[in-house]
Amino acid sequence: MIRVGVNGYGVIGRRVAYAISKQNDMELVGIAKPDPDYKAKLAIKRGFDIYASCDADRVASFDSKGVKIRGMLSDLIEKVDIMVDCTPEGVGAKNQKIYDKAGIKAIWQGGEEHSISNFSFNAYVNYSSAINAKYSRIVSCNTTGLIRTLNALNNAFGVKSVNAFLVRRAADPVEIKKGPINAIEIEKDMPSHHGDDVKTVLSNMDIHTVAAKASTTLMHLHDINVELKKNITKDEVIDAFRKYRRIMLVSAEDGITSTAHVMDIARELGRGHGDMYEIAVWKEMFVNDRRLQYFQAIHQESDVVPENIDAIRAMCNIETDAEKSINKTDISLGIGVSL
Amino acid sequence: MIRVGVNGYGVIGRRVAYAISKQNDMELVGIAKPDPDYKAKLAIKRGFDIYASCDADRVASFDSKGVKIRGMLSDLIEKVDIMVDCTPEGVGAKNQKIYDKAGIKAIWQGGEEHSISNFSFNAYVNYSSAINAKYSRIVSCNTTGLIRTLNALNNAFGVKSVNAFLVRRAADPVEIKKGPINAIEIEKDMPSHHGDDVKTVLSNMDIHTVAAKASTTLMHLHDINVELKKNITKDEVIDAFRKYRRIMLVSAEDGITSTAHVMDIARELGRGHGDMYEIAVWKEMFVNDRRLQYFQAIHQESDVVPENIDAIRAMCNIETDAEKSINKTDISLGIGVSL
Amino acid sequence: MIRVGVNGYGVIGRRVAYAISKQNDMELVGIAKPDPDYKAKLAIKRGFDIYASCDADRVASFDSKGVKIRGMLSDLIEKVDIMVDCTPEGVGAKNQKIYDKAGIKAIWQGGEEHSISNFSFNAYVNYSSAINAKYSRIVSCNTTGLIRTLNALNNAFGVKSVNAFLVRRAADPVEIKKGPINAIEIEKDMPSHHGDDVKTVLSNMDIHTVAAKASTTLMHLHDINVELKKNITKDEVIDAFRKYRRIMLVSAEDGITSTAHVMDIARELGRGHGDMYEIAVWKEMFVNDRRLQYFQAIHQESDVVPENIDAIRAMCNIETDAEKSINKTDISLGIGVSL
Amino acid sequence: MIRVGVNGYGVIGRRVAYAISKQNDMELVGIAKPDPDYKAKLAIKRGFDIYASCDADRVASFDSKGVKIRGMLSDLIEKVDIMVDCTPEGVGAKNQKIYDKAGIKAIWQGGEEHSISNFSFNAYVNYSSAINAKYSRIVSCNTTGLIRTLNALNNAFGVKSVNAFLVRRAADPVEIKKGPINAIEIEKDMPSHHGDDVKTVLSNMDIHTVAAKASTTLMHLHDINVELKKNITKDEVIDAFRKYRRIMLVSAEDGITSTAHVMDIARELGRGHGDMYEIAVWKEMFVNDRRLQYFQAIHQESDVVPENIDAIRAMCNIETDAEKSINKTDISLGIGVSL
Repeated sequence: MIRVGVNGYGVIGRRVAYAISKQNDMELVGIAKPDPDYKAKLAIKRGFDIYASCDADRVASFDSKGVKIRGMLSDLIEKVDIMVDCTPEGVGAKNQKIYDKAGIKAIWQGGEEHSISNFSFNAYVNYSSAINAKYSRIVSCNTTGLIRTLNALNNAFGVKSVNAFLVRRAADPVEIKKGPINAIEIEKDMPSHHGDDVKTVLSNMDIHTVAAKASTTLMHLHDINVELKKNITKDEVIDAFRKYRRIMLVSAEDGITSTAHVMDIARELGRGHGDMYEIAVWKEMFVNDRRLQYFQAIHQESDVVPENIDAIRAMCNIETDAEKSINKTDISLGIGVSL
Repeated sequence: MIRVGVNGYGVIGRRVAYAISKQNDMELVGIAKPDPDYKAKLAIKRGFDIYASCDADRVASFDSKGVKIRGMLSDLIEKVDIMVDCTPEGVGAKNQKIYDKAGIKAIWQGGEEHSISNFSFNAYVNYSSAINAKYSRIVSCNTTGLIRTLNALNNAFGVKSVNAFLVRRAADPVEIKKGPINAIEIEKDMPSHHGDDVKTVLSNMDIHTVAAKASTTLMHLHDINVELKKNITKDEVIDAFRKYRRIMLVSAEDGITSTAHVMDIARELGRGHGDMYEIAVWKEMFVNDRRLQYFQAIHQESDVVPENIDAIRAMCNIETDAEKSINKTDISLGIGVSL
Repeated sequence: MIRVGVNGYGVIGRRVAYAISKQNDMELVGIAKPDPDYKAKLAIKRGFDIYASCDADRVASFDSKGVKIRGMLSDLIEKVDIMVDCTPEGVGAKNQKIYDKAGIKAIWQGGEEHSISNFSFNAYVNYSSAINAKYSRIVSCNTTGLIRTLNALNNAFGVKSVNAFLVRRAADPVEIKKGPINAIEIEKDMPSHHGDDVKTVLSNMDIHTVAAKASTTLMHLHDINVELKKNITKDEVIDAFRKYRRIMLVSAEDGITSTAHVMDIARELGRGHGDMYEIAVWKEMFVNDRRLQYFQAIHQESDVVPENIDAIRAMCNIETDAEKSINKTDISLGIGVSL
Repeated sequence: MIRVGVNGYGVIGRRVAYAISKQNDMELVGIAKPDPDYKAKLAIKRGFDIYASCDADRVASFDSKGVKIRGMLSDLIEKVDIMVDCTPEGVGAKNQKIYDKAGIKAIWQGGEEHSISNFSFNAYVNYSSAINAKYSRIVSCNTTGLIRTLNALNNAFGVKSVNAFLVRRAADPVEIKKGPINAIEIEKDMPSHHGDDVKTVLSNMDIHTVAAKASTTLMHLHDINVELKKNITKDEVIDAFRKYRRIMLVSAEDGITSTAHVMDIARELGRGHGDMYEIAVWKEMFVNDRRLQYFQAIHQESDVVPENIDAIRAMCNIETDAEKSINKTDISLGIGVSL
């Protein structure tokens, strides 16, 4: 049984810890967080062991709030084979030294640079390269979404080039200090960094992206223009996407015309946290010879969660076959609903 | 085994159907809805039988979308002992005739007038009056929230008068056509109707309410000023609320300072639809002699759900003891978390 | 002096009436509106004459609210040479008969179909074709924005093809009933109608558009991909846009990174209604050989206002030279600010 | 001619500078700001002289952006009789030393503490106390709004006690980094600080306030409960408010039911920046014997602007009569519209 720790218990950390607890080939040893807030209290209700990642002089605050800890982050590190680092952007890089010193494996999230591990992961694309790896980085939610559907298209038809526009959600639901409340904010860097991030996994992809932020907390929306290497029909594209459980086809014909509807499906499916692990792709797409344009919605809080689980399996060599790991993960999380 | 139908499968209907399916003393015979959208498809995935509540000439649309129905609404009516009507405001009143003709019991939601049943229900307050009742109405989400906490205070200290300000959420998450996007809208009727609605259950309550709408989909927020019949301390108030599982005490000391945090707790608790059945009351309250002022947050999508379940039990005389029904309902839905 | 009426006094009608009142070669005879609300009271404060466009039996409501009218819509029609119809989408088409019967000229807005007049107008592109025209239609805010910048590019470099993504504002500031509050809504028709609407003015443009709605009231944002007929540099593109006063170049280097900043500029400029008549184009653009990608922001409430004024001049043959009319309009409204 | 400087050129500073430039008994010597952004460029277009308030080593950035400065903040200080400090919260306090050293008068905004000047100002209430004062503080937008209407009620009927709920706008339009996007955030301190702030001007007022933040940028909304010292009628209350030009009565009967409508009026009135200097009070109020409850909307960007102008006049002893100063200010800014 692989012993796993989760360092950081925010939007991603909580979900990764939950997903680990649903696997039968790994054990969640504990989670580390810096303060004893309501998330700590709820972690205890889940039966998770808590380790304090704050400075020693602030440990008393856990006691005073009635949040029992099992030790410090350093204690957790000693007990695990691999740590999933879900700390805020930039903090993860600082943690690398202590993981290195302890000789444990580690996974970082997309907020960190590719250079932290020189290996960026997506289960469909490069699972086998992750086997026995010491370090890896799960690409960000947007990048994961782009990779999932572009990889499907590339495998089916060959992708010549991609031009994507990302309407980003401006904040997560619980990030109440972030805006904008009433504006659209452009990403001034054109192209945006997302295209280059895709290439950390799909190195040969010719992709150009730009982005803007909208006043919403639910999901990102992508408008993706692809030039394929051969002529296609809409049915062929839909079939190509259908092969992947982590892509969910939705349709305005069923009344699904917004990110609110997609998240409503997630809540109806009864997943942990009301999450949508799949990339939602609208069947209402534009197809003309080799040209394809489609909308997809990305649940920024959760689409990377199954990727983390698969990365653990590959890196710890519990399962060498990508498809078997993906199946296992998907079944455990209820992924793969067809409407 | 009481046979229950749910007519209307929107925000409330879906949740009531789900809650019924979690009870071991009642059976969800089926749900009725007028169109074969994604919610119909997901109902089938839940194993619910679907009945069409549209005109006969539109039934074919269910077939063409691949949504198998078990019959029309009239067929469902024949098979049930009681119908929970969750149709849109005003439609429920029109349905009364057909329930009456069929001789079945019926429950309406707060969008309908008190006069539809001349009996408005809250499990804590008037469960016993509902026993064997033919018709009842579950008061609205806001009214349910007011009644829960005011009843607790009244039982503990006696309530002399109440002055409440309701900041209403302007739309449910899935109501993407409703605004405002960037404004606060006043309710021009002063007092608002909510106070009178409370009196349909707590007939002697001296209560005055006003309301405004804010640009949010998550929860209503109430600012409640109460004059009690005796001097109180904050600890006494907190103890009074703690006696009721359908009230959840929260605190800014745990990092809970907004409706987004309250709904984050709900998602973390893993309830159906990520719901918060409890009324969240902040421990940060103002107490001075007989005066109490507190904030509470109401999850408009779900706080009435357990009330519907208890009403079914009372009306169908499965359980004559209020406390036993409430316990049963709460256990089935995971209600009663203490942070 | 050309006598002009404005029928409809909502978001667009009010601004067109204001702009007419700023011209020295036309006279605003009056405005017609169906109810005596605050906008009617403010119109009187501006010195505008009001005509009632309601049914005869509702005229009394104007009196009872203290809003003095000069007659009915039919009276206004008799007094004018040309009517600018700013009634809600679909209503304008019904009005065509009465304008026709009265033998007056008329201008419709972009909510109506091109077929209403078989002539769609943009001052830069087809002013001369509007001379002496009986009817014309000012294309919508989005279409006007696309035409302004694409026409500039076409004149300078030749446009081979266009692929644009429109993030639409979901409602105007005063449309408090419209949402979404927290979602992104896709336009299910791919391509969207906007490209075809551009072709009603720029008939040879090869343009493809898709759209989504964001939760904001301020401005639309366009991401525009253009393939030009020759290689370009960023400086050349900026120079091409600079030739047109109705295009305003903005830059993230000056702290302008969102639609909120663009509208802040408008308020600072002291225009009527705090409007931004210009299309704001960011200097942060992507240029590569013949390829250009840029962001532009469209103030949906006002960019069509100067177009209406120019159309009046052309149709009534007050001024035959497009450039002279545009100059006159721009000076009267303070258009043409260079940051 | 009094020589006035404005230090800080954000939301408030820009408006105060504009208002000063509209007075014929004072001269805007210049404005100081720390960076050469678009607001600096627009200030130059207004004809305002700019002084740099940054460190000396950053002055070059003004040059490189083409923003010509007349000197440093220290140069501006030497040229003025009085400085209106509109720097961000907390910065103003640091500036006090340099104003003191230079021997100039100074006005701070409500973000600073009362103790900065030990005198907080409202033109209606304590103009005469400001005469010849060296320092004063204009209370915040919310406090100014509360004082305006409570002072009117107190003068007319006597106010016994006040209980107010403030639904605060969460960010200004241009503050695109602030949220929440979709939540209501409580102010955990009960009572909130606003009541005490009112007492810095109306020292004998018995007032209790609580607050929450809504996802909007336009205006604050107040629900105000007042117990008066005698019985009142609605007409008497309306008459009492009508005596003050800086209070604007609005009504749902005219279609004004939200803060968006109030700001729409402001834009229609053609004021600088589309501002609403008046406190908007709804005629739809609740009156019962000595009890009054009313809604008011506060334009956080501008209601304090006329107060700043009056404070300058009093402190510099240009005008000793409050009413004359208020008249002068109101006429210059177009304040006092009756709908």
